[in-house]
Amino acid sequence: MIEGWRTLSSTVQFTGVRLVVRRDVVRRTDQSQGTYEYTESTDGVRVVALDGQGRIALVEENVYVCGQRLLMCPGGGCEPGEDPSAAARRELAEEAGLHASEVELLTTMWRMPAGARTREHLYLARGLRIGEHHRDASEADMELRRIALDEALAMCGDGRITEAGTLAAILLTAHRIAPRPPSRQ
Amino acid sequence: MIEGWRTLSSTVQFTGVRLVVRRDVVRRTDQSQGTYEYTESTDGVRVVALDGQGRIALVEENVYVCGQRLLMCPGGGCEPGEDPSAAARRELAEEAGLHASEVELLTTMWRMPAGARTREHLYLARGLRIGEHHRDASEADMELRRIALDEALAMCGDGRITEAGTLAAILLTAHRIAPRPPSRQ
Repeated sequence: MIEGWRTLSSTVQFTGVRLVVRRDVVRRTDQSQGTYEYTESTDGVRVVALDGQGRIALVEENVYVCGQRLLMCPGGGCEPGEDPSAAARRELAEEAGLHASEVELLTTMWRMPAGARTREHLYLARGLRIGEHHRDASEADMELRRIALDEALAMCGDGRITEAGTLAAILLTAHRIAPRPPSRQ
Repeated sequence: MIEGWRTLSSTVQFTGVRLVVRRDVVRRTDQSQGTYEYTESTDGVRVVALDGQGRIALVEENVYVCGQRLLMCPGGGCEPGEDPSAAARRELAEEAGLHASEVELLTTMWRMPAGARTREHLYLARGLRIGEHHRDASEADMELRRIALDEALAMCGDGRITEAGTLAAILLTAHRIAPRPPSRQ
């Protein structure tokens, strides 16, 4: 809780299958009063799976809510109570059939700070071993691609990659592991 | 709409002040049926305001929904019908008291593709002129900071900057304008 702020009431406005909408009335430090409406849902994860040849795994998938096919790092929602790094490993296996010996946190970010109490945990996975993927019905049209990190970086800048977690994860990976990627010379 | 997919029904489940929850029943290309629950709200904007000395404007603000003080690029929600670039200029003036001669789009991203039909438009603003800011009551505790782009970049990697739009906008700016920022040498 923010120091000096007080929640006067917190009411569930709507309970759906995957999200809850709350409306809170709050008194701020300066005694002004505010009403905040937001959703609560489980956190999500995205994983940059980087292989020994400097390529990352991206899945291309129809995303109904966006009305588009999106190119994303493997990822999805955490199961209730699931540790985010376990969720990252699970999604990587399910969507890309990949198992990683090393999974490190890039960062944890707020996806919609004013409207959604939900975070996205971004990981970098290395030491990859290929297995079988296990996708569910909604992922039947998912396509796995391997793309050089430099190319993925360019895709973040030209509109081919537009999913927030994927954008941040790829850009952070480049920042972390490649102080001088070839595309920057 | 995704080719081959058909929306069988779309029902408003909840109407709030700033968001609407919908539940759609969909038939996919392979004839499987799915239900999607998601929020609709206006798009948002974030602006990297870069001055002549390589510093960017960041606002530090209490964000109730996250229960934290966050460091973010100036930005916020578009007004209904407002052009995103106009919203970017408006938020920049309101929150940071800055007017830009040049505002270019870095990218448009989906913030929560599976759960929210709302996009974030990220801008890079240059040619800055300082005016007065006009914040509303909820922004009374907002603090304006000027931080070197390189330092901001480091903050994206170490957890000091955690807001999705701010992360992506700063990382994309560095990628676009600084092929060899000093921190990468």
